Amino acid sequence: MKLEARSWQKFARRRIQPGASPGTLAVDPQAPPPRLRLVAYGPDELHEEEIADPEALRAWRGRLPVVWVNVDGLGDVELLARLGAVFGLHQLALEDVVHVPQRPKLEAYGDQLFVVLRQSRSHGQLDTEQFSLFLGPGFVLSFQEREGDSLEPVRERLRKGRPRMRNGGPDYLAYSILDAVVDGFFPLLEGYGGQLEELEEEVLSNPEADVVSRLHLVKHDLVSLRRYAWPMRDALGALSREDSPLLEEGTRLFLRDCHDHAVQFLDLVETYRDVSSGLIDLYLSSISNRMNEVMKVLTIIATVFIPLGFIAGLYGMNFNTELSPWNLPELNWRFGYPFALGVMAATAVVMLIYFRRKGWLGGGRRRDGRRG
Amino acid sequence: MKLEARSWQKFARRRIQPGASPGTLAVDPQAPPPRLRLVAYGPDELHEEEIADPEALRAWRGRLPVVWVNVDGLGDVELLARLGAVFGLHQLALEDVVHVPQRPKLEAYGDQLFVVLRQSRSHGQLDTEQFSLFLGPGFVLSFQEREGDSLEPVRERLRKGRPRMRNGGPDYLAYSILDAVVDGFFPLLEGYGGQLEELEEEVLSNPEADVVSRLHLVKHDLVSLRRYAWPMRDALGALSREDSPLLEEGTRLFLRDCHDHAVQFLDLVETYRDVSSGLIDLYLSSISNRMNEVMKVLTIIATVFIPLGFIAGLYGMNFNTELSPWNLPELNWRFGYPFALGVMAATAVVMLIYFRRKGWLGGGRRRDGRRG
Amino acid sequence: MKLEARSWQKFARRRIQPGASPGTLAVDPQAPPPRLRLVAYGPDELHEEEIADPEALRAWRGRLPVVWVNVDGLGDVELLARLGAVFGLHQLALEDVVHVPQRPKLEAYGDQLFVVLRQSRSHGQLDTEQFSLFLGPGFVLSFQEREGDSLEPVRERLRKGRPRMRNGGPDYLAYSILDAVVDGFFPLLEGYGGQLEELEEEVLSNPEADVVSRLHLVKHDLVSLRRYAWPMRDALGALSREDSPLLEEGTRLFLRDCHDHAVQFLDLVETYRDVSSGLIDLYLSSISNRMNEVMKVLTIIATVFIPLGFIAGLYGMNFNTELSPWNLPELNWRFGYPFALGVMAATAVVMLIYFRRKGWLGGGRRRDGRRG
Amino acid sequence: MKLEARSWQKFARRRIQPGASPGTLAVDPQAPPPRLRLVAYGPDELHEEEIADPEALRAWRGRLPVVWVNVDGLGDVELLARLGAVFGLHQLALEDVVHVPQRPKLEAYGDQLFVVLRQSRSHGQLDTEQFSLFLGPGFVLSFQEREGDSLEPVRERLRKGRPRMRNGGPDYLAYSILDAVVDGFFPLLEGYGGQLEELEEEVLSNPEADVVSRLHLVKHDLVSLRRYAWPMRDALGALSREDSPLLEEGTRLFLRDCHDHAVQFLDLVETYRDVSSGLIDLYLSSISNRMNEVMKVLTIIATVFIPLGFIAGLYGMNFNTELSPWNLPELNWRFGYPFALGVMAATAVVMLIYFRRKGWLGGGRRRDGRRG
Amino acid sequence: MKLEARSWQKFARRRIQPGASPGTLAVDPQAPPPRLRLVAYGPDELHEEEIADPEALRAWRGRLPVVWVNVDGLGDVELLARLGAVFGLHQLALEDVVHVPQRPKLEAYGDQLFVVLRQSRSHGQLDTEQFSLFLGPGFVLSFQEREGDSLEPVRERLRKGRPRMRNGGPDYLAYSILDAVVDGFFPLLEGYGGQLEELEEEVLSNPEADVVSRLHLVKHDLVSLRRYAWPMRDALGALSREDSPLLEEGTRLFLRDCHDHAVQFLDLVETYRDVSSGLIDLYLSSISNRMNEVMKVLTIIATVFIPLGFIAGLYGMNFNTELSPWNLPELNWRFGYPFALGVMAATAVVMLIYFRRKGWLGGGRRRDGRRG
Repeated sequence: MKLEARSWQKFARRRIQPGASPGTLAVDPQAPPPRLRLVAYGPDELHEEEIADPEALRAWRGRLPVVWVNVDGLGDVELLARLGAVFGLHQLALEDVVHVPQRPKLEAYGDQLFVVLRQSRSHGQLDTEQFSLFLGPGFVLSFQEREGDSLEPVRERLRKGRPRMRNGGPDYLAYSILDAVVDGFFPLLEGYGGQLEELEEEVLSNPEADVVSRLHLVKHDLVSLRRYAWPMRDALGALSREDSPLLEEGTRLFLRDCHDHAVQFLDLVETYRDVSSGLIDLYLSSISNRMNEVMKVLTIIATVFIPLGFIAGLYGMNFNTELSPWNLPELNWRFGYPFALGVMAATAVVMLIYFRRKGWLGGGRRRDGRRG
Repeated sequence: MKLEARSWQKFARRRIQPGASPGTLAVDPQAPPPRLRLVAYGPDELHEEEIADPEALRAWRGRLPVVWVNVDGLGDVELLARLGAVFGLHQLALEDVVHVPQRPKLEAYGDQLFVVLRQSRSHGQLDTEQFSLFLGPGFVLSFQEREGDSLEPVRERLRKGRPRMRNGGPDYLAYSILDAVVDGFFPLLEGYGGQLEELEEEVLSNPEADVVSRLHLVKHDLVSLRRYAWPMRDALGALSREDSPLLEEGTRLFLRDCHDHAVQFLDLVETYRDVSSGLIDLYLSSISNRMNEVMKVLTIIATVFIPLGFIAGLYGMNFNTELSPWNLPELNWRFGYPFALGVMAATAVVMLIYFRRKGWLGGGRRRDGRRG
Repeated sequence: MKLEARSWQKFARRRIQPGASPGTLAVDPQAPPPRLRLVAYGPDELHEEEIADPEALRAWRGRLPVVWVNVDGLGDVELLARLGAVFGLHQLALEDVVHVPQRPKLEAYGDQLFVVLRQSRSHGQLDTEQFSLFLGPGFVLSFQEREGDSLEPVRERLRKGRPRMRNGGPDYLAYSILDAVVDGFFPLLEGYGGQLEELEEEVLSNPEADVVSRLHLVKHDLVSLRRYAWPMRDALGALSREDSPLLEEGTRLFLRDCHDHAVQFLDLVETYRDVSSGLIDLYLSSISNRMNEVMKVLTIIATVFIPLGFIAGLYGMNFNTELSPWNLPELNWRFGYPFALGVMAATAVVMLIYFRRKGWLGGGRRRDGRRG
Repeated sequence: MKLEARSWQKFARRRIQPGASPGTLAVDPQAPPPRLRLVAYGPDELHEEEIADPEALRAWRGRLPVVWVNVDGLGDVELLARLGAVFGLHQLALEDVVHVPQRPKLEAYGDQLFVVLRQSRSHGQLDTEQFSLFLGPGFVLSFQEREGDSLEPVRERLRKGRPRMRNGGPDYLAYSILDAVVDGFFPLLEGYGGQLEELEEEVLSNPEADVVSRLHLVKHDLVSLRRYAWPMRDALGALSREDSPLLEEGTRLFLRDCHDHAVQFLDLVETYRDVSSGLIDLYLSSISNRMNEVMKVLTIIATVFIPLGFIAGLYGMNFNTELSPWNLPELNWRFGYPFALGVMAATAVVMLIYFRRKGWLGGGRRRDGRRG
Repeated sequence: MKLEARSWQKFARRRIQPGASPGTLAVDPQAPPPRLRLVAYGPDELHEEEIADPEALRAWRGRLPVVWVNVDGLGDVELLARLGAVFGLHQLALEDVVHVPQRPKLEAYGDQLFVVLRQSRSHGQLDTEQFSLFLGPGFVLSFQEREGDSLEPVRERLRKGRPRMRNGGPDYLAYSILDAVVDGFFPLLEGYGGQLEELEEEVLSNPEADVVSRLHLVKHDLVSLRRYAWPMRDALGALSREDSPLLEEGTRLFLRDCHDHAVQFLDLVETYRDVSSGLIDLYLSSISNRMNEVMKVLTIIATVFIPLGFIAGLYGMNFNTELSPWNLPELNWRFGYPFALGVMAATAVVMLIYFRRKGWLGGGRRRDGRRG
């Protein structure tokens, strides 16, 4: 929750100097410096290299069918601006790459397509970062906020020379990357699924007071995920329908499949959210049932004893019995004490019968919230 | 609920190796091995056979007007891939068949239509599996996760040589199959209808604490069903409007009818969901009414006796009455005790009158939550 | 509620043999046998007759401009099939007539229009049945589940020879019938309006525990009505826009008016539903206010007396005052008793002042939930 | 609320004879008789007159560019029918004028436009009536349920000879009238705004039990207003886009502005509704906080004194201390009484420390629901 | 909240004379007098001047490529009317400028575009005012309610002669201004983000009674912001798609970016609203858990002591033990007192065991609503 909270803050802080010139690349001073990694390939050749100066990439453009530059870290604005100049990126798009977080979206700038998604950084907790991708003629650029990514399997497939990858154009590469980014959310969701199963178990058997807080935290995370999932679905749907010469007809089917995964991601988030809401409701009504039962039983005990206590108090009064036969004559009866005990027992029995008839004693029979 | 919980898990686990090559057919190791069953027929002829090797099907294509292969079990990826090769299925579609669960959908791959639905496996509890169907020129392929299906009546109609079935093309067969799958949900819904009726009876007469858990379970199942029902309705609606040469004009009316059934299925699920929500609300307010009444009556008893107890305590004090006429002179009155009893009775009566005037004693008259 | 509950059940049971051949006319064994009633008319002539054999109708087709056959009861499938053959009804439409309940809808089959609505059978309680209507060239067929209908005024207008009716074609007759069916819901709604007014009165003045159950029942009925009202509105809207040669331009304005009535019906249902929800909320908060007040006043009484009781108990202790001057010397004071009473009075006053200052005693001033 | 309740009733009662011939002008017997008022004008001339016989209006049609007849009261159906005949009104539209209330709407009948709105009759409470308007070539007809209207400022502007009014055609007049009707709701809304401000003040400072009823009443009124506001917005939006030769291009901008006002009206109603819902929630949680605090403090007092009372009761037992040294030896101790008082004080202190450590005594610090 | 409350009021009061002639410029008497500020510029020249008489602007039109007049204060209607005459503004648009608040919108009047937005006046609290902008050939007019604005950075960029600003036409200037207005909301949102973080901290650690009021206030503000955010998004989206010759193709990309910011603004408002709702729910369930725990522990204490008190009362009765061996013989037992104490201890232990077995004593283990 903390991570995400910081993310809200950053979101709002993004443009703290309203009226700043658009296209100005201001940068988060804590962002790590960029690390550029080139993969250029064709059906028969593959070249992989770490690049220090973006100008070096100019030579690679066109030499091989597909040039893929992956950038980890957004901490050096000048470097990114020079990279943008090499590939002719639009200033506004570059601004969106740097000013994280952006809403996931697809935008066309001239002959380039620009896609913003989010990617999951961790399988155990909600920790996401922005993922930006440019698809242009002969090249793919991908930008990530921090090092360490989920694209290694894609590189591995390229290195192994899988024919569909090596023969495919940059559009197929872009698809492979986007698909990996979307699929990266599923392990995270599996984690939430496991947590929900555990919490369900607890709610049904032995709900503790902290279950509801944990459910709220899970639901809170799912609401955050949902905020990304909706626009991601829309962006990928738009991409699969995009009428651009960059996209070959064969790749379009794959993009539709990727859109499908985004739909399933959203679907699953919505399902888990419903499940967590349902569990919160179930917890609350189970707690309330239990509380009601506690109160009822305890109040019944108290209520039965209060009249009995009153009777005991009555015979504890100090009226002068010697002075008058009207004053507490029971105290001097031979069976006064048994009589008093009898009255008390009778009172208790009558009240218990009354309560049972009203059905107030029956509520305790099934009390655990399970199927009977 | 357990079954469905496992289904969420599987859903998320589906693509646990993000970045895996698309079109890779990974398989659930616990899935049963496939069993292929061929039904080939024309107006005058019907051939039924269990097939071991998909290659054997190549010979059947075109020999009779309609070739229907039903596959039970998805546990042998290679076999399915060979089957896909025989009928020219797209790799991505085949992946969707194997990677269950998919969201119900309709997709066109070249001249083939690919439909994903869910089917109900049981009439008594929520147990569903994926149902996939390919409709191509001259053939229908259907895939189910486990053996045992609801298509036996369709085969029976084919065997009996019903003219509309035997003269119809593969599109009419596909309609018959999809209709059987959709209709397979109605007995399940009838079960929920019966449960809701029973639960309504209980809520109105004698609500136990576990009613709300059972209502939550029913509502939970209905929410799950709703997740399938929406996209099934959309997929069948799209199919009935699909502009494909595979669908004859006459079959389109039948597909519209099948879509209609899916709409009714969704409608019924929504209705039951509303009913269960309404019953939960009714239960909660009835429980709360009852609890309030318990608390009120019990508190009234306690409150009446507390002042009486105080008076008794007053005359149980041990002030020395001999020392001074100011100390508890009532103790030495001739009618001290009757006087004390009188004061107590007066106090009780005054309080009861006050309570009655405030209307706090009247709530017990009608307490059972029925129409009076 | 019972009636509607049974209706859910029937709804689900409708297709209990999934996979049954489409177009098979299975029939509810308890449905009453059909009764056919012919009204044939032109501008100058009107013929009314009860028909036993549908074949007899063949002769009437075309003899007069408009042939109207009304069928009450759906219990004889064969008879209905023969009727369908006479008028060339599509098998699927006929199936929808028999397999009640269907969702209200408009469908076109060739040159015929097929409308399914629901009609109200009773003005006092929610009791509806399916109403189906075929509009074809020169004929109108209407189907009702049971005898007794709301179409008598339409027949009366025909018999009286109202020119617009007698000169109008089958489309005008169909409009008149549909309008009567829609308008048949308004008296029922008036009943709910009256109930809601009464319940509002009760909630504001003297809410009993059963008010909420009755409100839930009304709301439940309104939710059921809403399920019919939405698709009825859509079906009639589609009809008024339907581009069919059967509908004359002049009739279209009337159908738009009929659609308008359906919109008002839906509007009223929604309004009543909002009103009942609002009353439930108001009841709950009024009950809760009242309960809070009860608890508060009672607890205050108890709390004030508990310390007093403690003081009385203090002076009821039996410490040996003769042995030592430290043991309860107050008991031997001259004004010990008045002193004790004074301490009690002071305690009570201090507590009451404290409570009043906290504002806990002021809540009782306005307690009835009315405008002050 | 009463007025509106009656309005629901009338709404449902409107068509209590289902099947009545459409276009039949039935009339509410309590409706006041119509009063017709003619204003005919051109750029240089204005004629104002009260009309008894609609036939007299025939002569006025065409004599001056614009003829405006306003009708107050709908109690004489025949008169209205004759008026309809003079201007060629469609029977169904006339029926909608008389059968109040209708849903606000725009309808085109031949070359005439027919608009139904609602107008506010009072600025202090929710009291609305139907307002119907016909716009035809050279004439405007307006119908109101009762006398007394908000159109006097429009007449005043005509009389004063404002050029835009006098030169404008009937479309500009219709715009002026509709604008006045829509704007007539704003003073009413201002009243609700004032009430909500007062209620907000009360909720934040000193919530009484009746605040929630008053909030419910305001919300109820706003929900009713919303029912009119939605279709009014739609009707005026449709009018501003209507492609009719009656509407000049210049007037269209004004109608768009009028539509804008309807949007703002709806917006304001929605805002107030949100505000009232928020206040109800705030009230409920503030009441619940307060109640919790009351219960907590009172229960703490009771709980502290109950063990003390028990100790006092212990030493009030009458065991025979002379018989055995085991029987209540404390009673004969020299410092027995101070010892007992000390035990009591220690018990009370321990319990209070325990409560404070649990944080149960701290809740009373800030209790008024304001910003601290 | 006060500010916004006043804003509702003004909103309703806006047209308090229904039927007033449209285009009449009535004015809020408390509005400050207008202050006009001219900035005229071209690529090489920039002229800045405060203007007293609008007529003076006539000379500037066309002299330089872009004329920007900013008006602070709407208190002098005549002046504004003369300004409108100079630039040919439509009367209705001018009316919308003056009659604040209007709903954010885009409207086309002839060759001019008219945009209404809201702008934030303060970063610490919700204080907004209307911002109106006219874009015409060669000029931009902006209107603000009060002095002091967020446009200073835009002027600064003009003065510094940034080429894109100075070479851009009035459309680029309009974009810069609108972007500054939208971005002006982000610091305000950051403030709410900070408040929510603090409140979250409090809810999780030590919730006070006023947390919920503060959460309600934040949520209330966010609901108000949402009312502006939706139409602002729509207006800016419409502007970016507007097909007007005023907008150059290059500027359109920038307007799309500005629309994007409005989408993010709305997104953030919705997120914060969800967060605040979630925190309110969490607070309520945490308070309710805590209250339940208090009540439970306290009730248990009371319940254990009530039977003990009863026993003590029993042996405080004054039955005459000398008269009969049946009367309270325990009082004269040698070990009567230890016996009584033993009975009490046994009772207490039995009850505590019973409570523990029921699980009513275990709820106190984790009570703080944190992750365990």
